[in-house]
Amino acid sequence: MRKNTLACAAAVIGTLALLSLPVLTTAAKAKPANDGRAQCYECHEEVKALKEGSRHASLSCATCHGKMDEHMNDPESSRPVTVIDQALCARCHKQQYGSFVTVNYEAHARREKGIPTGRSPMQDKLLAGHGFTFEHAEPRGHAFMVTDQFIVDRFQGGRFQYRDGWKGVDRTGKTWDVLTDTGRKLPETAMAGNPTCIQCKSSDHILRWKFLGDRDPKAKWDRGSDVVAIAKDTNNPMGCIHCHDPHGTQPRVVRDALIQAIEKEPATNIFARNGRTDLRMISFRDGFRKIGVMEKVDSRMMCAQCHVEYNCNAGNQWSDGAKVGFDDRRTNHFPLRNSLQLLKHYRELDFYDFKHAITGARLVKFQHPEAETYAGSVHDRAGVQCHQCHMPQQKGKNGKSFSNHGVIRPKNHVRESCLGCHPDSTVERKLYQIEAVRNYISGKMRKSEYWLGQLIDSYVAAQRMGVTESVLAQAREKHEEAHVLWEYWTAENSDGFHNPDLARESLAGSIAASKAGVRILNDAMQVARKGDGK
Amino acid sequence: MRKNTLACAAAVIGTLALLSLPVLTTAAKAKPANDGRAQCYECHEEVKALKEGSRHASLSCATCHGKMDEHMNDPESSRPVTVIDQALCARCHKQQYGSFVTVNYEAHARREKGIPTGRSPMQDKLLAGHGFTFEHAEPRGHAFMVTDQFIVDRFQGGRFQYRDGWKGVDRTGKTWDVLTDTGRKLPETAMAGNPTCIQCKSSDHILRWKFLGDRDPKAKWDRGSDVVAIAKDTNNPMGCIHCHDPHGTQPRVVRDALIQAIEKEPATNIFARNGRTDLRMISFRDGFRKIGVMEKVDSRMMCAQCHVEYNCNAGNQWSDGAKVGFDDRRTNHFPLRNSLQLLKHYRELDFYDFKHAITGARLVKFQHPEAETYAGSVHDRAGVQCHQCHMPQQKGKNGKSFSNHGVIRPKNHVRESCLGCHPDSTVERKLYQIEAVRNYISGKMRKSEYWLGQLIDSYVAAQRMGVTESVLAQAREKHEEAHVLWEYWTAENSDGFHNPDLARESLAGSIAASKAGVRILNDAMQVARKGDGK
Amino acid sequence: MRKNTLACAAAVIGTLALLSLPVLTTAAKAKPANDGRAQCYECHEEVKALKEGSRHASLSCATCHGKMDEHMNDPESSRPVTVIDQALCARCHKQQYGSFVTVNYEAHARREKGIPTGRSPMQDKLLAGHGFTFEHAEPRGHAFMVTDQFIVDRFQGGRFQYRDGWKGVDRTGKTWDVLTDTGRKLPETAMAGNPTCIQCKSSDHILRWKFLGDRDPKAKWDRGSDVVAIAKDTNNPMGCIHCHDPHGTQPRVVRDALIQAIEKEPATNIFARNGRTDLRMISFRDGFRKIGVMEKVDSRMMCAQCHVEYNCNAGNQWSDGAKVGFDDRRTNHFPLRNSLQLLKHYRELDFYDFKHAITGARLVKFQHPEAETYAGSVHDRAGVQCHQCHMPQQKGKNGKSFSNHGVIRPKNHVRESCLGCHPDSTVERKLYQIEAVRNYISGKMRKSEYWLGQLIDSYVAAQRMGVTESVLAQAREKHEEAHVLWEYWTAENSDGFHNPDLARESLAGSIAASKAGVRILNDAMQVARKGDGK
Repeated sequence: MRKNTLACAAAVIGTLALLSLPVLTTAAKAKPANDGRAQCYECHEEVKALKEGSRHASLSCATCHGKMDEHMNDPESSRPVTVIDQALCARCHKQQYGSFVTVNYEAHARREKGIPTGRSPMQDKLLAGHGFTFEHAEPRGHAFMVTDQFIVDRFQGGRFQYRDGWKGVDRTGKTWDVLTDTGRKLPETAMAGNPTCIQCKSSDHILRWKFLGDRDPKAKWDRGSDVVAIAKDTNNPMGCIHCHDPHGTQPRVVRDALIQAIEKEPATNIFARNGRTDLRMISFRDGFRKIGVMEKVDSRMMCAQCHVEYNCNAGNQWSDGAKVGFDDRRTNHFPLRNSLQLLKHYRELDFYDFKHAITGARLVKFQHPEAETYAGSVHDRAGVQCHQCHMPQQKGKNGKSFSNHGVIRPKNHVRESCLGCHPDSTVERKLYQIEAVRNYISGKMRKSEYWLGQLIDSYVAAQRMGVTESVLAQAREKHEEAHVLWEYWTAENSDGFHNPDLARESLAGSIAASKAGVRILNDAMQVARKGDGK
Repeated sequence: MRKNTLACAAAVIGTLALLSLPVLTTAAKAKPANDGRAQCYECHEEVKALKEGSRHASLSCATCHGKMDEHMNDPESSRPVTVIDQALCARCHKQQYGSFVTVNYEAHARREKGIPTGRSPMQDKLLAGHGFTFEHAEPRGHAFMVTDQFIVDRFQGGRFQYRDGWKGVDRTGKTWDVLTDTGRKLPETAMAGNPTCIQCKSSDHILRWKFLGDRDPKAKWDRGSDVVAIAKDTNNPMGCIHCHDPHGTQPRVVRDALIQAIEKEPATNIFARNGRTDLRMISFRDGFRKIGVMEKVDSRMMCAQCHVEYNCNAGNQWSDGAKVGFDDRRTNHFPLRNSLQLLKHYRELDFYDFKHAITGARLVKFQHPEAETYAGSVHDRAGVQCHQCHMPQQKGKNGKSFSNHGVIRPKNHVRESCLGCHPDSTVERKLYQIEAVRNYISGKMRKSEYWLGQLIDSYVAAQRMGVTESVLAQAREKHEEAHVLWEYWTAENSDGFHNPDLARESLAGSIAASKAGVRILNDAMQVARKGDGK
Repeated sequence: MRKNTLACAAAVIGTLALLSLPVLTTAAKAKPANDGRAQCYECHEEVKALKEGSRHASLSCATCHGKMDEHMNDPESSRPVTVIDQALCARCHKQQYGSFVTVNYEAHARREKGIPTGRSPMQDKLLAGHGFTFEHAEPRGHAFMVTDQFIVDRFQGGRFQYRDGWKGVDRTGKTWDVLTDTGRKLPETAMAGNPTCIQCKSSDHILRWKFLGDRDPKAKWDRGSDVVAIAKDTNNPMGCIHCHDPHGTQPRVVRDALIQAIEKEPATNIFARNGRTDLRMISFRDGFRKIGVMEKVDSRMMCAQCHVEYNCNAGNQWSDGAKVGFDDRRTNHFPLRNSLQLLKHYRELDFYDFKHAITGARLVKFQHPEAETYAGSVHDRAGVQCHQCHMPQQKGKNGKSFSNHGVIRPKNHVRESCLGCHPDSTVERKLYQIEAVRNYISGKMRKSEYWLGQLIDSYVAAQRMGVTESVLAQAREKHEEAHVLWEYWTAENSDGFHNPDLARESLAGSIAASKAGVRILNDAMQVARKGDGK
């Protein structure tokens, strides 16, 4: 049926490739109905529903797709080309794209978190045994999300390096124009990295990755794929299509584990208001791929595609210690729970990341749980969404307003980020208030770390004194509890500002758990000492 | 006798209250003698002596007092109202008041001292067991002295919080417009705070607090009062009257323990020059209250009402370990001794604050001993007083000079603070020299902390190895010595600039004491090891 | 022969002294041949070779020398005066001199390295037992190189102090106008310092110090001289003549141990290109003194007179523990090896500096090995020399270009230092790239320190558990290895920028060695525990 040869649209873009993008001609815009899309719609009803009547209605299918005649001749074995390069979108959305790729020199490169002035000064001790101890740098802008991920010393042994040395550190563009594969493992590096984590960093694989990354003949990549191979096939950071449906411009989400988590708890998930979210799920290719489309922008969900705690690596089960490998869907999982709930969640999920190298406690290393942290905060309850503070409207060179897609740090842009809603305040005051929260919560983080350190040191001493395993096991449980309540905040990027109350409660809980662990061990050591007859 | 009904002055201010302050009419100023004050003077001779001939001579008593007719009808049971709100003073002294309440955004809020970049990075270990480990923030301006005191996590379990969330962090004004009582103890907080410490933070209770805070039927509050109750009755930060006599504008001091300390050693106290100070003590209500009045401003004493090491909390006795409660005057005590002298002083006073949670050493937590530090320094010997650097003259909007009552940090205002006396220098040079001292002394502080940490760690190890109590006791003594010589400098606010020589000597002494303690323990451990037959 | 009385030149400068420098008259310049130099050349052929035809050819000998008539009358016992004060050179080379003595207020004074924000936060633990733990300040400009050296708390017990207190901290000029000798040892200071180290700080002793500092009747000072005596005879920081031959303006080096090291490996030393350096050695007074003269400036060698790892103190031998005293030439030694090679080098040299106070490992404390670090780096291979980045050309007030002799930090002067070679970049970008390297390498340094700390702690624990000496010896060897690979980078002043690859390799090696040591100790402790029957 689809094998008719009418394929004018495809002909237009015959040589379509990244380096020769089609021109959006006025003609194409003027005659939406005559560009052959009807043929496409015969099979792709879900596309028609998205596209017709939308702001992209006038764009022909050939704008983004190529090799459509081959596809229509043999739809089963010949797939059309789909251009998902940001540069195509940028032909109309110049300002947004421009702000996305502009380097923000305020965000320093390769600044290690595990130093006295970093976000996690005691990291090497507290995360002993985890790959993040090899390099754990403060975050930079989205334009670097792929290259920063690949070059870090914990990713595949540091084999990927800047093509032209350190000058590459602020170079944006195609991944392999910036990086090179040395094929060489550097000393003191980890072999971490996996196909799932790349799904948050790039949109490149959206059509070649089955829902949740399950293995499938139709999917080029899955959770168990060779990570070096998929890395070398990853050319762009996360693109426009992660958040904007290309057919119809609807705000959307595409990250599978987020969709799964929201579908599981449609009325009670962290984004729901009045028992629901605005998200409508659309399935493509019989569930091979799903997207969630919104009526109105809810950037809390769009950003939550990455800015959440998620698990993407192999680990072990609490129940029996058995290995959980990439064949298991738990290696692509969004809990959507905050710091107070996560230990229980992971225990019920029967999954943990790694054992602490010193105490053997079963621990989780968090990602960047901004969405869960923000949920229920003062600003969230006031209806504020992520983009209002992080992607404020600004005037472009052409005089038109646009949303800054550089994703800024509000403390560096208080006027744009804060004063819109707080017009009676001043930059000086708001910055001071922001810093006050961060000062206070940073103080609590340092205290949590001190006490975790005390717990670990006491554990070692107790072990060396021959304290019984049952006591040590109690201490390890306290370690597990204290760790989760703390580590979350070194991964979260606001130093507590997103939700100071949650941060305080969580960190105080961490301190209390560590102290309890220290007490258990000290008591046991005192008994052990007396048992020595001293 | 005093029961006559002539009470015109009182009538004038009939409805006097904080929100309806009397107008200082020209008439009142012109006719000082006809405003009824003679009636007042019949009983209040000491007021007459202060007032007549002074710069406040023209103000009628009713300017600051109300309900005087009732008082004169029944002086024993009806006390006149006394307005001690700064706003009243501000009606004439606008610039001074304005500078007092202006928020200095250079002084950050709730910045914890116990972090790597703070003034006391190892505080949680070195002060283990003390309430300051729950929160110990860097100081801010005087306008926040009450709210910062009440909101800190070590004060009454953190029950007092900002009324409108973190936006309250830079709000000045009446205490309970800024704060609210949640009635709830937060986890990981201390229950510290006491009525005496509030006497340094507020002038509100000056007429309701007997000398030294002794219990008395005429005193609403005393050292043993319920701290939450007095806190909730505290509405203003320290007022003008702490340093300026309202009757006659004489420079003065009112803080009882300072007066006691100076009276005890009139010729040899740290402020005396040529065997005396300029302070004349005046007693009100048969010693219920005392003030000290100066001929000439000596801000060293005025500031020393708070900027000293003082004790205001319960503790224990060195001699027998007995508890020292708030009934004991040692809970309102100014030593006026510097870091080299304080251990001896507190041993003789037979008082210590707390036991270290790990070693059990008997320790003191210091307040902000700027006055004792400064005494005998290069600048003190040159005759420089506190206000010359911290409250320099500046031009107001009206073109008149006034003393900045914001109490500035000279390093942020080198021109105003330093160049008046050092006209041949430059801002750049003076700042560099200031920072050089602070760099050097901060270095010594970090070294002292390192060695105290070594001492504590060695103590734990020795204890676990079963080293004898007599050796441990020697080590604890070294800890007590090393602690006092160090901790003083984390409490003092100049990082040694007030007196670099004293700071160096003291911190070197701390290091030496810690090293001696470590040596004692190491020697004993070596013996213990050999005793094990190894 | 030389006893003729013709000594007009000497007569001209009869009263020559530092305070009455001779005027360079036009006449003197015009008639080079008639100023009596021929007499001098009769004996001083090597001077003639340098001087005649050079840019200093027109200057008479009397410009810098005095008492020449006495000398010529009795050359053996009467030596001419030689003025080596920079002020004399400055009469023509104003801009260079001016930039040398200008205080760079960006380089802070007496900022301790051993603090959380310093270059070596864990120094007091990792260097335990070494004098640098008493004070180890970040470097400042060359104008302070003598005073900073003498005043530091590890130099002769801190007996030298600022003459007028802390105001002296930014005073330049003659050493003893700035400093005074208190004659008093301060507590918590070291007695380090020696005559050799002063040879890098000052040019004052160039004529009174035999090659390598050997003892000789003709030398006033030698390696074994009293350090206080030579310090008090040291009046100027390193002068122009360290790098510029005064007779002929040829670029040169004078530091004996550098000359020795280059002579030893003429074709393979770190400065050699194509198997050679441009350095021609000239011997004065039968080898009493040597200089190395270049055809063309190679600032890599000029700066390497000080900016290298060198040994100048007494120590011990690896082979037998025997003391190595100042009579031994190893106390004036330049290895010219980088961090990866130095442990082997010092083992072969059979010399180490000190034993670690806790583990007893035999350690080296490095100086500032910038030259060895830079050798082989990207910039070195591109032919860039030190002065191009650190002493860039700048316009003087007179409009003429000159090389900034203030020796700047490129990160504060990116335009001048970097953009000459990188014209397509920007200050913002280059600074960002520089900081990225420093961030990354600083992170590695902190990791190295963490692991060294773990090694030391584990050693103590193992020792206390009675682990055998043979295991402890293995751990000490790992400590020795890890230490050298790390400590070098706290001494080097670029935080890795000079050679990021070398820094990474070295620090990773340090971490690996520490981890290996920890593993050895942990394994032994586990065995020991089981041996206790637990």
